[in-house]
Amino acid sequence: VSVQGYNPRTGEPYGEPVEATSDTEVDRLCDAAAAAFGTWSTWSAADRAIVLDLVAERLDDESELLIRVADAETALGVPRLTTELKRTTNQLRIFAEVLREGSYVEAMLDSPNPDIIPPRPDLRRVLRPMGVVAVYSASNFPFALSTVGSDTASALAAGCAVVVKAHSAHPTTSRETARIVTAALKEGNAPDGLFSIIYGTQSGVRLVQHPHVKAAGFTGSIGGGRALYDLANSRPDPIPFYGELGSINPTVILPGAVADRSEEIAKGFAQSVTMGVGQFCTNPGLVFAPPSLVDALAAAVKDSAGGAMLNERMCDSYRSAVDTLSHSDLVELVATGSAPDEAWTGTPNLFRTSLGVFAANLEKLTEENFGPAGLVVTYDDPEDLLALLPRLPGTLTGTVHASDSEPELASRTGVQLQKIAGRLIYNGWPTGIALAWAMQHGGPWPATTNAIHTSIGVPGIYRWLAPVAYQTWPDALLPPELQDANPLGITRRRDGILGKH
Amino acid sequence: VSVQGYNPRTGEPYGEPVEATSDTEVDRLCDAAAAAFGTWSTWSAADRAIVLDLVAERLDDESELLIRVADAETALGVPRLTTELKRTTNQLRIFAEVLREGSYVEAMLDSPNPDIIPPRPDLRRVLRPMGVVAVYSASNFPFALSTVGSDTASALAAGCAVVVKAHSAHPTTSRETARIVTAALKEGNAPDGLFSIIYGTQSGVRLVQHPHVKAAGFTGSIGGGRALYDLANSRPDPIPFYGELGSINPTVILPGAVADRSEEIAKGFAQSVTMGVGQFCTNPGLVFAPPSLVDALAAAVKDSAGGAMLNERMCDSYRSAVDTLSHSDLVELVATGSAPDEAWTGTPNLFRTSLGVFAANLEKLTEENFGPAGLVVTYDDPEDLLALLPRLPGTLTGTVHASDSEPELASRTGVQLQKIAGRLIYNGWPTGIALAWAMQHGGPWPATTNAIHTSIGVPGIYRWLAPVAYQTWPDALLPPELQDANPLGITRRRDGILGKH
Repeated sequence: VSVQGYNPRTGEPYGEPVEATSDTEVDRLCDAAAAAFGTWSTWSAADRAIVLDLVAERLDDESELLIRVADAETALGVPRLTTELKRTTNQLRIFAEVLREGSYVEAMLDSPNPDIIPPRPDLRRVLRPMGVVAVYSASNFPFALSTVGSDTASALAAGCAVVVKAHSAHPTTSRETARIVTAALKEGNAPDGLFSIIYGTQSGVRLVQHPHVKAAGFTGSIGGGRALYDLANSRPDPIPFYGELGSINPTVILPGAVADRSEEIAKGFAQSVTMGVGQFCTNPGLVFAPPSLVDALAAAVKDSAGGAMLNERMCDSYRSAVDTLSHSDLVELVATGSAPDEAWTGTPNLFRTSLGVFAANLEKLTEENFGPAGLVVTYDDPEDLLALLPRLPGTLTGTVHASDSEPELASRTGVQLQKIAGRLIYNGWPTGIALAWAMQHGGPWPATTNAIHTSIGVPGIYRWLAPVAYQTWPDALLPPELQDANPLGITRRRDGILGKH
Repeated sequence: VSVQGYNPRTGEPYGEPVEATSDTEVDRLCDAAAAAFGTWSTWSAADRAIVLDLVAERLDDESELLIRVADAETALGVPRLTTELKRTTNQLRIFAEVLREGSYVEAMLDSPNPDIIPPRPDLRRVLRPMGVVAVYSASNFPFALSTVGSDTASALAAGCAVVVKAHSAHPTTSRETARIVTAALKEGNAPDGLFSIIYGTQSGVRLVQHPHVKAAGFTGSIGGGRALYDLANSRPDPIPFYGELGSINPTVILPGAVADRSEEIAKGFAQSVTMGVGQFCTNPGLVFAPPSLVDALAAAVKDSAGGAMLNERMCDSYRSAVDTLSHSDLVELVATGSAPDEAWTGTPNLFRTSLGVFAANLEKLTEENFGPAGLVVTYDDPEDLLALLPRLPGTLTGTVHASDSEPELASRTGVQLQKIAGRLIYNGWPTGIALAWAMQHGGPWPATTNAIHTSIGVPGIYRWLAPVAYQTWPDALLPPELQDANPLGITRRRDGILGKH
């Protein structure tokens, strides 16, 4: 068995087939990763930061090659892939900065007090890396959510070892990326086996069940994610499985916003919903708007262009969903964009329905349709819409467009969206995900397998760290983060108060 | 069906039977809790703190009644139950303090920067309560890990609503506690339905699957915990299930410590292993020691006393495990303590084996034996012991007794124990759990269902909080924790740096 990449623009094979990884080889790589973890986890955060920066530099050094290969395998285009690779290397650099700043370990120190109930001994707590992390690459971000994307970068930063399951849609991009990462890690004197990559569906099944694997990160479909999640949970020793599975990203256009700037909103929507041929987890495919906005939205989508989709399966599935909707009594097709004459092309489409029909067919009409399609749901009374919003499935984002004249309505819309979404956007669009402490890329099921963690942004590192508390432990034997003198000079929580003490 | 309490000292029924909660009633309570959450989650942290303090005060007001009832149902004794109740009310007060201090919401603010890749909009993130929390009471802490124990206190503090499944071993204690809590919440004007209690096994099964329940906390056996965990994970929308399931709490006595103070260690061990008739999650039932310490340990256990255990099932299971070990070729019974002549009595026992036999029969000899039994595993070469430690199952605690003359060995023992344990104790005993920011009561499976969270201590509140990020949101519409002016004066992470800004 081997994994073959394809050029989505031509439908022809691209690159050499990559051999699927055998169970024996998966086991060997997990063993090697566990051994490497034993060393890497003892490195200081500052030393790990140097290696992350080096990996970023070496990837940038070979950007021309990586972008060319990824464009051939994904058809995402050179401009998008250029920024995506830069985003990916900047992400490594951001984590390096976080390691140098050092407070991410959440050091907590409590003084002894024998006079309270219960008495308190000297207690000190710090976060430690958990072990080998399994990373499942996404199809739609061949750099930023793949081989050395958000999961891998945060796990290596945390002090974990990583085994990546490559996505079958871009094996050559994965192999080339892994080659550069492996060489850079070696150049930085990181332990052998700290990072490795495997190919083929069966290898991923084996990986999530391997005894050395202590946590997993995944970005992909609900079906594939749920299957791996169930395997992770049914192990004799279950492990945390952080999956980002699917999201419908509701966008609410309030009446005042339509009055203010309907053209601008319509163009913004068409641009966001067709970005990357609609293959974004944060694609705003579901829009709630007054009926008066529909013509502008339709005109904007008619002017928009699609393109080759990531692979044949995704293209078939998109076309089939569009076909089903086109023949459905529940919605009406109001606009179709253009598309280049390429093999696995997705064309933009806009459907409409009313809030009443939508509410009565919620399950059917809230299935994620991965591709450049939008559904505009028209509402007359904002109160009806507000009542409906919490009934939507969990989602990564919720967006409000409002005018300055309707703050109360905007605020109440935010309150309702917050019940189902992890990130709320005001007068903007959900596509485009900043790398920051304050980013939340997660939400109630099925957006992510749990709403507590984020798969993108600095706090994503907390998926791979577990606390250890030291009780009446001699100062000299404590990790430096917990020693009395605070030799690393980090912000710690001491007797409940955060400070550089 | 009804739930009947018993007096473990006499084996006779105690109190009126409590009717098992019907599925319809569970559903009604979950609906009411969801409605109450809608209100409670909008209260300021400071206002919730006032209510937590009031609940603590009202429980203290009725301490005499609560302790009397709990002693009859659990036989844990008035002194222990007096401190346990005080610990429980102090826990509510500690969470009230945490709410007033306010930084627990982990507010993060990042300034916009359009010039980086990817560009960063104004982003602000805060933690929000998740919804209705299911709490499964423990048998062995009728106050501190039951009706209004660690899970309930942290969930109410977080802004969640709570439905408690009472433990079948102390229904009257549960009912009386719930009565006081409900009245105090009403007195504090908390919304109706914010807190409720249910009885019977089936009610607990229904609860963890209820659509309104968004997370669950559990303390108990591996069997019961795993069954509920599997139900939580197999929901159409899985929820986080935080279970504290079982722990063997290895204790390592290094040669120098034996030379220094073998009597003191032996007495400390016997006291810790028989505390609460050995019915502690942190019971140090597994001791690694040089052969020369065995006589002292045996003498101390011989001098110790058992008592009535919590219920008939637990007593039967303890006696049966002791019986099996007594007839096993793998271990030798070296001491038996005394026990009062009561119905469901557990007697202290100490077994011994060698490191070689132990290592060859790891699975059999690392089963948790809930009760006042210890197994001392003798080692000759500390290096053999160090190599074995990481092979032990996940555990809440790991303890080292060392002398000042062996810091390197002590440190290396700590490194090995850290691989399997959430809390490391130096020259102390694991029983007795402080309530502090730096407490970690969790560890790799099966200690807890995940090693990232703690079920006791201030960070336990993070089990019930999920982040929400606001992007380019108008300042006036943001929650106060995120507004520019920092009206609550809390410590926040602003552009990556923690401070009161």
